[in-house]
Amino acid sequence: MNRRQSLGTLAALLGGPTVAASARAATPPRRYGHLLAVGGAEDRERDRLILRRFIELSGGPQARLLVLTVASSDPAASWEGYRRVFEALGAQRVEPLDLREPAQANDPAVVDRILDADGIYLSGGDQRRLMGVLWESAAARALHLAFHVRGCCIGGTSAGAAALSRQMLAIGEPALRPYRDAVSLDIGLGLLASAIIDQHFNERHRLARLLSALALRPDLLGVGIDEDTALLIERGRSVEVLGNGAVTLVDARQMRTNVREADPEQPLQMLDVRLHLLPAGTRYEVVDLDPRVPAPPPALRQALELLVRPGPIRG
Amino acid sequence: MNRRQSLGTLAALLGGPTVAASARAATPPRRYGHLLAVGGAEDRERDRLILRRFIELSGGPQARLLVLTVASSDPAASWEGYRRVFEALGAQRVEPLDLREPAQANDPAVVDRILDADGIYLSGGDQRRLMGVLWESAAARALHLAFHVRGCCIGGTSAGAAALSRQMLAIGEPALRPYRDAVSLDIGLGLLASAIIDQHFNERHRLARLLSALALRPDLLGVGIDEDTALLIERGRSVEVLGNGAVTLVDARQMRTNVREADPEQPLQMLDVRLHLLPAGTRYEVVDLDPRVPAPPPALRQALELLVRPGPIRG
Repeated sequence: MNRRQSLGTLAALLGGPTVAASARAATPPRRYGHLLAVGGAEDRERDRLILRRFIELSGGPQARLLVLTVASSDPAASWEGYRRVFEALGAQRVEPLDLREPAQANDPAVVDRILDADGIYLSGGDQRRLMGVLWESAAARALHLAFHVRGCCIGGTSAGAAALSRQMLAIGEPALRPYRDAVSLDIGLGLLASAIIDQHFNERHRLARLLSALALRPDLLGVGIDEDTALLIERGRSVEVLGNGAVTLVDARQMRTNVREADPEQPLQMLDVRLHLLPAGTRYEVVDLDPRVPAPPPALRQALELLVRPGPIRG
Repeated sequence: MNRRQSLGTLAALLGGPTVAASARAATPPRRYGHLLAVGGAEDRERDRLILRRFIELSGGPQARLLVLTVASSDPAASWEGYRRVFEALGAQRVEPLDLREPAQANDPAVVDRILDADGIYLSGGDQRRLMGVLWESAAARALHLAFHVRGCCIGGTSAGAAALSRQMLAIGEPALRPYRDAVSLDIGLGLLASAIIDQHFNERHRLARLLSALALRPDLLGVGIDEDTALLIERGRSVEVLGNGAVTLVDARQMRTNVREADPEQPLQMLDVRLHLLPAGTRYEVVDLDPRVPAPPPALRQALELLVRPGPIRG
C-alpha cells in the first residue's frame, strides 16, 4: 500500500468510533508520533531551537508543515510570523490553515490537508476559540489519526499547547493560592490523555492555578511549561525538555485535599503534592530504558508514564 | 524558688555552653514556648487576629511585652505602629527594645529585660541588620532561655520571621526558577532548628527562591508564609495556621537534584519535592495526638515533626 492509498484508507475511516483498531490494522505506524508542547514566546530570532527541532521531527526541509492559526484573533499576522521563521529555518513546504467556523472543520479538503501533513503547529491565541471551532469535528479526528497512525509531529504553543490535552485549562484567573473557583476546565484535543498543560508557567506565576485544576482532577498530571521552553513527548517512549526554561510536573495523585468542603473562594488545603522540576536539557526514557540514559527515580517515572501513555484515538 | 530567683539563675547561666542542661535542671518549664512566625503585613486595623493571639499566648493584657525593632531601619516608627495596635488590643505593659550596635546586645540590662518578658515580637525590616546586632550576643542567648525555659512567646514578622530559624534566607533575588546562586544563607536566631522560613510568600512569588535554598539544604523543611498569615508552633506539640492566607511547607528530603554540577545561573533539576499547603484554620497535633483532631497524613506528619522538634539552646 503506497502513501496515497494509506491516506485514502484513513480518510474513509474518519467517521466511526471503531477508527482506532481498524486504522491501526490497516496502517502500521511508520514512526512514533511526537508532541511538542511549547510554553509560549518561543525564540524566533536567535537559536530558534524549538522551531528548528519541530522541523526536524517533522522530517526536515521537505516536510509538509501546516501552521494552524485557529486559536489566533489575527490569523494573518500569526501565519506571517511563522512563515518567516520556518522559511528562514529552511522549511520548503509550509502552509497556513485557518478555520473560523465549525463547518469549515468538517470540510473534506481540510481533512485531506491535515492527513497530508508531516508536521502541524498550533499557534497561540485562545484555546477556547480553537476548541470552539474544532470540537468534535472531522479536522480534530484527522489530527488524531495524523498523530497516532501517521506519526505526524504535532506542536502547539501557548493556547495551542493548552489544547493538546483531553482536560484543558479553559479559564484561569491569576491566583495567589489555589482555590476551587480559580479555574474552569473544558475539553481539549485529547492528544495527551492523562495530563493538563499550563503555559507561560513561571513567568506568569501559574502554579496556584494549576494546583487549583489538580484539586479538582488529581488523577491528571499537571504540566507547567515556561516560555521559550518545550516539552517533547515521544509517544510511548521518552520525554525531553528543550529551550531556555523548565517544565514543572505536579503529581497530586497522593494528595489529600478539602476541595469538596471548602468555600469556593477560600485557599485550599492540599497535602502531599509532588513536584518535579525539569530544566531544559533533561531527557528521560520511560520504557525500553536505554542503559546510557540515567533512569528516572521511581516517583518521577510514575509521573512520566502518564505523559507518554498513548490516549485513545478519538473518533 | 520564686520568679526573681529563677531569672537570676538564668542570667548567671548566660555565659557558658552547658546552659541547656543546667538551666533545664534548675528551672522546669512553666509551659510550652510558642513561636509565632508571621509572613509580614499582618492586619493592624480590622480583626487583628494574629496580634491578638500573640497577646493571648503571652499571657493576656497584663503580660510584659517587648517589641524588638532591631531589624527596622526606622525603629521609632516601627515601635509607634506596634504600640498603637497592642494598646488598642488591651495590652497594658508593652515596651520597645531597640539595639543598634552589637555592644548593646551584651548589656546586662538588656538581658534582664528579655528574661523578664512574657512575649517578644520581632519587627520587620532586614534580617541581616537584626543578626548583625544580635549574632552571638548575650541578648540572643537570653531569647533562647526566655523561649525554651520560661515559655516566653516569641513572634516575628517578615524579617523577624526569617530570623527565627537557624539557617536564615539572608539575600534572595526574585527568581522565576530555582538556581544555585539565587539565595545566600546565613545564621539566624536558631529558635527553629530544622526549618528555613520565607515570608510574603505567595504575594512575592517566592517558591523558586525557597526551592533554591532547599537545593543547598534539603535536610531543612522549607516554610513559606503568606502575608497576614502566621504559623504558630507549640514547641514539641502542635502546629496551627492563623490569618488570611496559607503556609506552604516544602519537603525536599527525598529530592534528587543536580545542584552540585549545575551552572550557578542555570535552572536546577529538582525531582520529588513534596508540597503541603496549609490554609489558615489548619491545626495539627504532632505528638500526644488528640483523638478529636484529625491526624496528619504520614508525609505531612514527618514534615511537621521537623517544625515542632525543639532545637538545642544556643549558649
